[in-house]
Amino acid sequence: MTDWRGGFVAVDWGMTHRRIYLVRNGTIEDFSQDDLGVFSVPSGGFEAAVAALKARFSGRPLLLAGMIGSEYGWMHVPYVPCPAGLDAIAAGVRWVEPGRVGIVPGLSLTEEGRVDIMRGQEVQLLGLAAMGMLSDHATICQVGSHSKWVEVADGQVLRFQTIMTGELFGLLRRHSLLAPLIGGDVRLGDAFLDGVERGFADGGMGAELFSVRAGVVLGTAAGADAASFISGLLIGCDVRSGLSLDVDGDVAVVGTPALRSLFVAALDHCGRTPRQVERDQAFVAGVSALALAIS
Amino acid sequence: MTDWRGGFVAVDWGMTHRRIYLVRNGTIEDFSQDDLGVFSVPSGGFEAAVAALKARFSGRPLLLAGMIGSEYGWMHVPYVPCPAGLDAIAAGVRWVEPGRVGIVPGLSLTEEGRVDIMRGQEVQLLGLAAMGMLSDHATICQVGSHSKWVEVADGQVLRFQTIMTGELFGLLRRHSLLAPLIGGDVRLGDAFLDGVERGFADGGMGAELFSVRAGVVLGTAAGADAASFISGLLIGCDVRSGLSLDVDGDVAVVGTPALRSLFVAALDHCGRTPRQVERDQAFVAGVSALALAIS
Repeated sequence: MTDWRGGFVAVDWGMTHRRIYLVRNGTIEDFSQDDLGVFSVPSGGFEAAVAALKARFSGRPLLLAGMIGSEYGWMHVPYVPCPAGLDAIAAGVRWVEPGRVGIVPGLSLTEEGRVDIMRGQEVQLLGLAAMGMLSDHATICQVGSHSKWVEVADGQVLRFQTIMTGELFGLLRRHSLLAPLIGGDVRLGDAFLDGVERGFADGGMGAELFSVRAGVVLGTAAGADAASFISGLLIGCDVRSGLSLDVDGDVAVVGTPALRSLFVAALDHCGRTPRQVERDQAFVAGVSALALAIS
Repeated sequence: MTDWRGGFVAVDWGMTHRRIYLVRNGTIEDFSQDDLGVFSVPSGGFEAAVAALKARFSGRPLLLAGMIGSEYGWMHVPYVPCPAGLDAIAAGVRWVEPGRVGIVPGLSLTEEGRVDIMRGQEVQLLGLAAMGMLSDHATICQVGSHSKWVEVADGQVLRFQTIMTGELFGLLRRHSLLAPLIGGDVRLGDAFLDGVERGFADGGMGAELFSVRAGVVLGTAAGADAASFISGLLIGCDVRSGLSLDVDGDVAVVGTPALRSLFVAALDHCGRTPRQVERDQAFVAGVSALALAIS
């Protein structure tokens, strides 16, 4: 049996990018990031991409998480149904090379009238549990191009929901009638919080989106605030929807600093004071817990 | 003074298309449509485009409505602030050639915490009033790439709000992660009405959008229903927001048949039975009323 304690390579392999960590004793000994996301790997090219990783890291064992286990990736690894924790996720790892190259399964949720899926974020959730960051019953907000809001109790992921906030913001910024108005930087300030308040109060973004154009045309709103307002609006809607999981316990926000700070400000504005966890830290704690469970 | 009763040309000049009507005695004697929207007219090219119309229609007087009066069009024609009716709109016509070539002004709304604008739809509203289609106090839903929900009383436009539903649907269909799933036809059926119900109940589309992908991946939803569900979801959110204008009177839906039928079905599902008006009919009744007012 492979001893993962000698160090292993973990990859968070997303759609457009991958993040590669050399992990030993729960710490990151080497990190790199590139744009070889699953959409950039040519058809039939995953074996070569993984062989290159093995060569680069002297044949250390590999744990691959994220979209690489999806229908767009190397091979489809079945989702583990919620509720699920460390044991179920470890048992769901698909071994491409027994004990040496494994793909982490995602999680699925099926409940009355709603289904959802995640791939990659489950590792961060394991990390938060391993770090002792979770109260008995907590809500976790994982920010990214899609937000995941997750209800966790006693180390088990009970439920979650995905909200396409970051992707929607990107679509509006690149392709919509509002694009010329909202290309600027998003700043944490009054315009952002005004957007948060409107999104959180109502949840419907439709009418507010166009009001940005009307405000700029009529001169009642500053064009420089438009991107911040729209970002706040979408995040306010996101937080409203996410908090509808309705857990009274702690809220933790996981992600990269810039986006995390927006969600933290929005939650704070809505009366919740979340804890914050850096994405890499959560991921590495999670793969380390997983490596221990499968060693 | 020009006698508009001898027949005139009215143009509904949008962003991407224009619709050209030869109108006499309130009826359409000739109609054509082309893709010379304001975004397709080269810089400085509006004089030539209008001269071509005059030549084509033997110098008959011209009434131009829509985005041609915007900052993207021929010249900026100031918005008429709400509340406004036929007299105020007629008084706001900008004469490029006195009495012979006029640009119809749009409407603006400024109220506590919200502003909005329209250009082109105000003509349809005048048409509905002229056709006697409006009860003393009514809600009008004008469907298109943006929906306009309008509160009208005693022939005056009191308030309105714009919702970017059609544009959002287009963005999702062309550019989002859902694009491969929702390229199909939208059909009036259970999936559409399921979407309407969810959108109308909650108003927040974020979590439901991604559920379409999850459902198809997990095999709990039919891929063929995805476009219909998402269309229903967005229209359900739209109707929820539009009806928040909270008028108890009649609702009328104005637009082209295909899109109108979706909004009518959605409103019906939400307990309102709207009247329906064809877009061309409303527009021509509106420009005819306007022509009479300015003759």
